[in-house]
Amino acid sequence: MGKYHGKSTTVLKPKTTQEVSEIVKWCNDRRIGIVPQGGNTGLVGGSVPLRDEVIVSLSNMTQVRSFDPVSGTLHVTSLVYYVAPHNHIMPLDLGAKGSCQIGGNVSTNAGGLRLLRYGSLHGSVLGLEVVLPDGTILDQLTTLRKDNTGYDLKQLFIGAEGTLGIITGVSILTPPAPQASNNVILALPRFENVLPLYKTVKRQLSEILSAFEFIDRTAYDLAVKHGQGRALSEGEVEGAQCFVLVETSGGRREHDEEKLNDLLESLLEADEPLINTGVLAQNPAQFSSLWALREGVTEAVSKEGKAYKYDISVPLSTFKECVDLTRERLRSKGLLNEDQVKAVIGYGHVGDGNLHLNVIAKSYTPEIQDALEPFVYELVASHRGSVSAEHGIGAMKTHALHYSKDEVSIAWMKKIKAIFDPNGIMNPGKVLE
Amino acid sequence: MGKYHGKSTTVLKPKTTQEVSEIVKWCNDRRIGIVPQGGNTGLVGGSVPLRDEVIVSLSNMTQVRSFDPVSGTLHVTSLVYYVAPHNHIMPLDLGAKGSCQIGGNVSTNAGGLRLLRYGSLHGSVLGLEVVLPDGTILDQLTTLRKDNTGYDLKQLFIGAEGTLGIITGVSILTPPAPQASNNVILALPRFENVLPLYKTVKRQLSEILSAFEFIDRTAYDLAVKHGQGRALSEGEVEGAQCFVLVETSGGRREHDEEKLNDLLESLLEADEPLINTGVLAQNPAQFSSLWALREGVTEAVSKEGKAYKYDISVPLSTFKECVDLTRERLRSKGLLNEDQVKAVIGYGHVGDGNLHLNVIAKSYTPEIQDALEPFVYELVASHRGSVSAEHGIGAMKTHALHYSKDEVSIAWMKKIKAIFDPNGIMNPGKVLE
Repeated sequence: MGKYHGKSTTVLKPKTTQEVSEIVKWCNDRRIGIVPQGGNTGLVGGSVPLRDEVIVSLSNMTQVRSFDPVSGTLHVTSLVYYVAPHNHIMPLDLGAKGSCQIGGNVSTNAGGLRLLRYGSLHGSVLGLEVVLPDGTILDQLTTLRKDNTGYDLKQLFIGAEGTLGIITGVSILTPPAPQASNNVILALPRFENVLPLYKTVKRQLSEILSAFEFIDRTAYDLAVKHGQGRALSEGEVEGAQCFVLVETSGGRREHDEEKLNDLLESLLEADEPLINTGVLAQNPAQFSSLWALREGVTEAVSKEGKAYKYDISVPLSTFKECVDLTRERLRSKGLLNEDQVKAVIGYGHVGDGNLHLNVIAKSYTPEIQDALEPFVYELVASHRGSVSAEHGIGAMKTHALHYSKDEVSIAWMKKIKAIFDPNGIMNPGKVLE
Repeated sequence: MGKYHGKSTTVLKPKTTQEVSEIVKWCNDRRIGIVPQGGNTGLVGGSVPLRDEVIVSLSNMTQVRSFDPVSGTLHVTSLVYYVAPHNHIMPLDLGAKGSCQIGGNVSTNAGGLRLLRYGSLHGSVLGLEVVLPDGTILDQLTTLRKDNTGYDLKQLFIGAEGTLGIITGVSILTPPAPQASNNVILALPRFENVLPLYKTVKRQLSEILSAFEFIDRTAYDLAVKHGQGRALSEGEVEGAQCFVLVETSGGRREHDEEKLNDLLESLLEADEPLINTGVLAQNPAQFSSLWALREGVTEAVSKEGKAYKYDISVPLSTFKECVDLTRERLRSKGLLNEDQVKAVIGYGHVGDGNLHLNVIAKSYTPEIQDALEPFVYELVASHRGSVSAEHGIGAMKTHALHYSKDEVSIAWMKKIKAIFDPNGIMNPGKVLE
């Protein structure tokens, strides 16, 4: 988003863990700051230098060390991404999947579209190799699914955004590729129907449910305006307050289709239907175009204007309220018009309680910024939510950390940082102020 | 197993987190050791005092604080176990489920029979409340599925066996209860068939596979001898070198049965069958009796004699070799006879790489002990395995920790212990020597 620019003069591209270790030790001895960089696809400035740090790019470390087709355990150096080994898939699916890298994904605890099904990286990462800030190599690169021998130190590096060390190796559990995937888009008359719908869908689709994505009407219209959304006709969209995209992934196509058909039928034939209409993908092209509608929202936002992006976790029941209150706030400040804030939209992962709240402006201005912050963070805190569900803290949200973490927790984070990185050379200015 | 006895004079049973905090602070100020105790069902002496520690029993803290039926998030005080709220289930299933407690489960990172399906507690625990060794209450009791705001400190307490603090609150993701469960027992002519069988079963049952349990012939015979195993006839068992119990859990009975029937048929009709025979449970009673065969092994072992229990993670392909080499070792020492070691058996969770290696003796003797240790640990280390897959380190395996963790890791564990518990009052003598 072009928000952060450092003054680094040096980018180093080590090829081995040993080289990373030597670089880090050299920098540590001289108190030189380091910014580890993976695919550099983050959204909160976590991989961008703030001053004159040395950038350690891991782009030359892209080796698959081993893969066990029985257990599905994949062991790679830091940066390999999106291998599809022997009919297995990565347990996460991100918008940036073409260019992000696995070491960065782990460092930022990336979630994405498959979290509902495959869980978080804290569960699927089996082992890590990390170069600590003094150059020591911490080898926790087990490929064991079960290992209860003391503290699970590797967990500290998952989501630490490179502030505690540089991840140089990952072993990760990859699930078998589903034999069949399908999806359906549902148009809902009221937001209030989303939760009952989610319960119904969970009950009926059970273990084959792999995504349950929410798009509000404004976001939908925006996606259509910018070229997505041919799946539903004008008539079908009429009267819809929001939309839900449901995806299934399973082991046998005919069973999955039967479940999905039965679901749609029971939804449409209910006495008080939760949905106005629903369109089931009939072929791979339609499957992709339904996903394009959801994934196209991000692109549409960029085309429409400058976006203030809030990636928050709040209780499912408050998704709409959070969007509405933010819009009201901007309206009450006289900022909701074509020349200032053009739209406030909500979309995201209902299954994970993760709402993407986007405020689309003609340009970034201090007035809008002041109207939004700390307003949005206070709103999140009032629901005991997270000010950063997925994107992390990076450089952008260090000042907002206290809305989601209490004093005791932040004090302990600082103690952890201090013992691993007493000289503060690792990704300085990120996560903790 | 009666191996550890302390000399505690005092058991305290606090009712609130605040009371736990006051007790811990009082003890810390006076340098008095504390042993936190949940259901006291551990197998490695982790919840037993070694000297004169104060026992802090959490048996009076058994409150369900909240449950969200939409997300499946359950929020409890330390000890509640095995609630089945609103058609959801706990994401773990242990032999000790009648008497163990959730705070203890989290402290020991318990795994159990459902790990294959629902993953480890590092993924399913959403939040923890922990009383730290100075009495501070660390509130990480979020119920959010996604929260990327800094270091995930709570992960350190999962599996720390009470050495870093006392867990007083847990929020955990509970999966929806399956609508249908079924199982089948398969008799295999050769151990070598287990891995190809596992691959076939994973491919065919896909997302409905919920257990894949291995029992070697000696373990099977022992279970039958002690009253289990009516499921297979003598003829069906003949020529079997080992057995596999496969369980499915899914959303629709007829689909699941079709998949399981198709699997059995294709296995039996293959040109070179991987199995001799298989028996599919036809009703709930038979379902239970197949499970009783697997779960009855533990009971049979107790009835047969004194057991040296090794709970190890090793590559799946080495399960049999580990059992055979251990038996050979005892034979070569002249210890394999009715008066010393009666049997060496292997069973466990193939899906997780977790082998239960049990050596059943007439009585515990130093000769057997010396023949087994460090032999077994060295064997595990040679495969880069874990000397404790599930049971933890406790008091029993502190000396064996180095077989699974290198010097750097152990040094960092000690640093973590030192900052959280500088006076060493929390469960002294456990995990770290």
